[in-house]
Amino acid sequence: MNTNSSNMMALAPNTSNKRETVCIFGTGDFGRALGHKMIQCGYPVVYGSRSTQISNLIPKDAEVLSHAEAAQKAAIIIVAIQRQHYNFLTPLAEILRGKVVVDISNNLKLNQYPESNAEYLAQLLPGARVVKAFNTVSAWALQSGALDASRQVFVCGDDMEAKQMVMNIVRALGLTPLDQGSLLAAQEIENYPLQLFPMWKFPIFLSLGLSAFFFFYCLALDVIYTYVYEKNNFSFFIAITIPNQICPVMALILLGLVYLPGVLAAIIQLYRGTKYRRFPDWLDKWMLCRKQLGLIALAFASLHAVFTLVSPIRSFVKWRTSKAIISQVLNNKTEPLDTTNAWLSDSYLALGILGFFFFVLVGITSLPSVSNSVNWREFRFVQSKLGYVTLILCTAHTLVYGGKWFLSPSAYKWYLPNIYMLSLVVPCTVLVVKFVLIFPCVDKPLTQIRQGWERNPKYSE
Amino acid sequence: MNTNSSNMMALAPNTSNKRETVCIFGTGDFGRALGHKMIQCGYPVVYGSRSTQISNLIPKDAEVLSHAEAAQKAAIIIVAIQRQHYNFLTPLAEILRGKVVVDISNNLKLNQYPESNAEYLAQLLPGARVVKAFNTVSAWALQSGALDASRQVFVCGDDMEAKQMVMNIVRALGLTPLDQGSLLAAQEIENYPLQLFPMWKFPIFLSLGLSAFFFFYCLALDVIYTYVYEKNNFSFFIAITIPNQICPVMALILLGLVYLPGVLAAIIQLYRGTKYRRFPDWLDKWMLCRKQLGLIALAFASLHAVFTLVSPIRSFVKWRTSKAIISQVLNNKTEPLDTTNAWLSDSYLALGILGFFFFVLVGITSLPSVSNSVNWREFRFVQSKLGYVTLILCTAHTLVYGGKWFLSPSAYKWYLPNIYMLSLVVPCTVLVVKFVLIFPCVDKPLTQIRQGWERNPKYSE
Amino acid sequence: MNTNSSNMMALAPNTSNKRETVCIFGTGDFGRALGHKMIQCGYPVVYGSRSTQISNLIPKDAEVLSHAEAAQKAAIIIVAIQRQHYNFLTPLAEILRGKVVVDISNNLKLNQYPESNAEYLAQLLPGARVVKAFNTVSAWALQSGALDASRQVFVCGDDMEAKQMVMNIVRALGLTPLDQGSLLAAQEIENYPLQLFPMWKFPIFLSLGLSAFFFFYCLALDVIYTYVYEKNNFSFFIAITIPNQICPVMALILLGLVYLPGVLAAIIQLYRGTKYRRFPDWLDKWMLCRKQLGLIALAFASLHAVFTLVSPIRSFVKWRTSKAIISQVLNNKTEPLDTTNAWLSDSYLALGILGFFFFVLVGITSLPSVSNSVNWREFRFVQSKLGYVTLILCTAHTLVYGGKWFLSPSAYKWYLPNIYMLSLVVPCTVLVVKFVLIFPCVDKPLTQIRQGWERNPKYSE
Repeated sequence: MNTNSSNMMALAPNTSNKRETVCIFGTGDFGRALGHKMIQCGYPVVYGSRSTQISNLIPKDAEVLSHAEAAQKAAIIIVAIQRQHYNFLTPLAEILRGKVVVDISNNLKLNQYPESNAEYLAQLLPGARVVKAFNTVSAWALQSGALDASRQVFVCGDDMEAKQMVMNIVRALGLTPLDQGSLLAAQEIENYPLQLFPMWKFPIFLSLGLSAFFFFYCLALDVIYTYVYEKNNFSFFIAITIPNQICPVMALILLGLVYLPGVLAAIIQLYRGTKYRRFPDWLDKWMLCRKQLGLIALAFASLHAVFTLVSPIRSFVKWRTSKAIISQVLNNKTEPLDTTNAWLSDSYLALGILGFFFFVLVGITSLPSVSNSVNWREFRFVQSKLGYVTLILCTAHTLVYGGKWFLSPSAYKWYLPNIYMLSLVVPCTVLVVKFVLIFPCVDKPLTQIRQGWERNPKYSE
Repeated sequence: MNTNSSNMMALAPNTSNKRETVCIFGTGDFGRALGHKMIQCGYPVVYGSRSTQISNLIPKDAEVLSHAEAAQKAAIIIVAIQRQHYNFLTPLAEILRGKVVVDISNNLKLNQYPESNAEYLAQLLPGARVVKAFNTVSAWALQSGALDASRQVFVCGDDMEAKQMVMNIVRALGLTPLDQGSLLAAQEIENYPLQLFPMWKFPIFLSLGLSAFFFFYCLALDVIYTYVYEKNNFSFFIAITIPNQICPVMALILLGLVYLPGVLAAIIQLYRGTKYRRFPDWLDKWMLCRKQLGLIALAFASLHAVFTLVSPIRSFVKWRTSKAIISQVLNNKTEPLDTTNAWLSDSYLALGILGFFFFVLVGITSLPSVSNSVNWREFRFVQSKLGYVTLILCTAHTLVYGGKWFLSPSAYKWYLPNIYMLSLVVPCTVLVVKFVLIFPCVDKPLTQIRQGWERNPKYSE
Repeated sequence: MNTNSSNMMALAPNTSNKRETVCIFGTGDFGRALGHKMIQCGYPVVYGSRSTQISNLIPKDAEVLSHAEAAQKAAIIIVAIQRQHYNFLTPLAEILRGKVVVDISNNLKLNQYPESNAEYLAQLLPGARVVKAFNTVSAWALQSGALDASRQVFVCGDDMEAKQMVMNIVRALGLTPLDQGSLLAAQEIENYPLQLFPMWKFPIFLSLGLSAFFFFYCLALDVIYTYVYEKNNFSFFIAITIPNQICPVMALILLGLVYLPGVLAAIIQLYRGTKYRRFPDWLDKWMLCRKQLGLIALAFASLHAVFTLVSPIRSFVKWRTSKAIISQVLNNKTEPLDTTNAWLSDSYLALGILGFFFFVLVGITSLPSVSNSVNWREFRFVQSKLGYVTLILCTAHTLVYGGKWFLSPSAYKWYLPNIYMLSLVVPCTVLVVKFVLIFPCVDKPLTQIRQGWERNPKYSE
């Protein structure tokens, strides 16, 4: 008899034209939403519930039975109940023996329990084939079929066939299953929906800390110093002038920090003479959050651009402009065009615009859909080559803008350097080291090391 | 005999190394494109045609036979013919009995016929297993293999196995099948490619209507009033000044309208004491178009930003600036810096820039690829928390900008308020109600209701 | 015995709960990364290596055997070795007979060898079922499981079942297999990861060439002419003034070039009276790079926008403004508001802003994730209708901006037209032809032709 002609059919060997029955324990929000979607996709659904009185919220066409009766009707049981009520399942252990039991629960906190809910369920039901799935999908997304919400369903379990059955259901619901391996992965899968941008935490705290430091630095130099020595109340600088000093400085430093781990890694590899030893942990972590650092730098750069463009509209700037013109008139002299000044002003603006332009280009290619549609070589070309072009342009922009003040004593209020001088330290270091690294005499051994060559081979193939 | 070792093989049980033959009725554009792609992917293709004379447009390697002969050669028949010619299939009903017949037709108008084309086909061929598929794919996308065009193929049908066979072909062609359930869904699938942004219609008409109203409101107050009472012809305000008043007002109102249904829903839930009753229809629809409202608001905000930044370049603004400076000179007095004014000007600019910044952030996360790569908690954090930050900043921006005029009689031309005052009604209402809703005494019962608690439980589980 | 109940199981018929063993030849970076990932996903992995001494870099749980022993243990052998060492496989030909041999190699250059690596492997091992796969995935992406890197795995091979087995493994690793047909496609698949934006090459070179031409044109007219005849050194125009003339001109010309092939195609179809003849090759290629041309045009337009907005901050512009004001004061006359000028200035700015706004809208919809979530009709509406609106607005922007100079002799330095006049040629041509094409007497036959009608039918169906 050869009726199991297609993949789906195999799960319902008796009738060739029907999907297998699925049992759902629990008639809460998620249980109902999941059942509703499954019925839509052709699965007969039977609910297991304490009370078998049919509520009008339960999808039509679904049966409601006691837990034991419902479980007997299906090969797959979805447990849509919170972990604290799992112990009611213990008496059902015998009925659930050999069946596929799907844990879809979530916790309220990261690592709330010592073991994952799915592993706990597997302990309670030793004979059942426990699979973790569906916990990352929201009831709302199931109901509305919104394309927006993530359609990825992480699946894990120790039983390969059970996992496969669940993945087939996931596909039939129009979602994308992602096999995450054995039930050990359940902890991670359960933590996933509780995460709040874990990769962004360190870069954001770093940015906030640095910004706060620079804010008080600027406040001291620009507002307090001026107030103390020049008796001018420039407290309104807090709104735009100071943010517009912090933003470019942060953008440049963070952009430097994106490329610093790369050159550090190259130095370490050159020193060790092999690529087959792990980098120190801090460097690994740093390298993994380069994308986030870069995007925050782009955010600061964008703010800097808008803050700069807005300046001619500012009341203070208008006042300063008209004061300058009036003083020229009253002194009855017209200043001729200072060509050097025009050159400097235009070139730092042009460098800044081009740097920002390339920065935005690199930012666009880090959008998931764009980076998915380029190959590895193209991705590296944009992120590395164009990234360095951005770094060079932005550093040059800062140097041309502030270069003339490096030698001027008035730039060192209270003997402290202006913050744009501080901002140049990291990017200049990166550029100088990178410049050394691309010399042939350094680049050649590095390339060899990266292709697998070892100066002192310890491991034979 | 156990040769059906893999999924694909099952469909061609005799030869273990070949895909099953597919028959295509019709040699029009789409039939040819589909056949071409299928041959590329390893399917033997046979065309059923009125005339069996081989045209050089039909892909090489494809056979062309009469309809009856072609249908006998394959288990799957793809009908690439327009609905009005379907009746020629009636004599073939016996040959097509038990075969998988795929309807790929589209109509020219929404709901052109009482029943969908696929259901009509199923009526004509009672013994055939009709599946709807491929109608959303364009011939051009099949030929060029463009990654751009949507790769989703909606599939529906009453026969599970037939549907599975079609979905396997879809996957083999490198496309993504999405099971939409029974043949009842065909109507919706046939309407899909005829839709033109259905979710956007209401938000766009609302925006156009409101914009037109505000345009005439501004025209009256700024151009006609000035012309009548001050004899100044400011008709050129139509180009930039008035749009730059409408845009921020529209952005703020629409942003308020994005968050208004949320607080209304909370009030209704609190009043009813349960979340298990449907919201009124208008509220449901409103909630479903929040994303569209928000993106239109972002578009208006962007236009406002550019219109504002462009102002120093405007001929009129340059003239006004020089007039002000010249009058100062001629009166021989230099105005000192008005610190309050500088504070006000800088803070509303800074608030606006930050509000716009967060608005763009929220907008970026509503790009499909970005929202697909964050989990539910992160998505809600951005859309709700950052969204409210945006609303607060933008409302504050407007308040600081126009605050001083609320008490000035000159702001009420013809006893009408200026439009930015009107724009504050919706966002301020939302913010005030939201502020009340986050008080613990209100927030606690609301949270309980949202977790399933009911004040007057009517439904038992 | 009917244990092969699910797709995966079929590949490991003896034990119902295990994935089949996979053998990997070669313990280099990619071999190790792939083995590691496979073990994670439940595949037993055995390495074939020259030396069976176990290095600590090889994943735990993997066995290391001689090539012959390892190959005997598995039905699938992955060859993670460079092409130049393939001849060591010749002695193993007998052992590999009938087995699935997966070629994952890449070359260093496009079309480095006359035949693809996979075809070469198939020649060396006549009895093996060679499949090409995995070459587009990087070791780094496998290890880090990064969602960013492309998850598409191109698969090709002559043996359908072998290909299916490999595609099942690809799916199990959480990647997306794309069937590319027979082993003939291997050449293309091997070239894919070596490509560097092939579709962008022509548009970028065209843009660079045109930009260089316009740069020297502007340099001659604006800097050299001024220096020669007016003795003014305006060399700093190179930084901003000239780029800000080139950018809008390039944007407008490239935007015109996006829509020119469409109207040319329409003319050709009208002339031929049929759509069933191929367009000339150059037109086909041109049509395929319209998206790239459009995005480069958008980049130029964005640069133009920023260059323009930045102008009030430029030292030169400030100097010019104050000079104008001072000369007014010294002549003791105040210019009245020139309403015509205000109208012109405001309307070209407004047209430019709106044109840029629609341009950005069209650009956003060409993001892969956005274009994937709209249907064909919506995509065409945006790309065609909104695109033409953009073209009309941008052309109008240029016309209003420079219109008054067309008749002024001073605009023709050295008898050469200003470059914005040159920029109008292409877009105006497109708009005029398009305008003719939408006349009913032209549009009707064109629509008929596009629906398949032929004036002189040569091919019968």
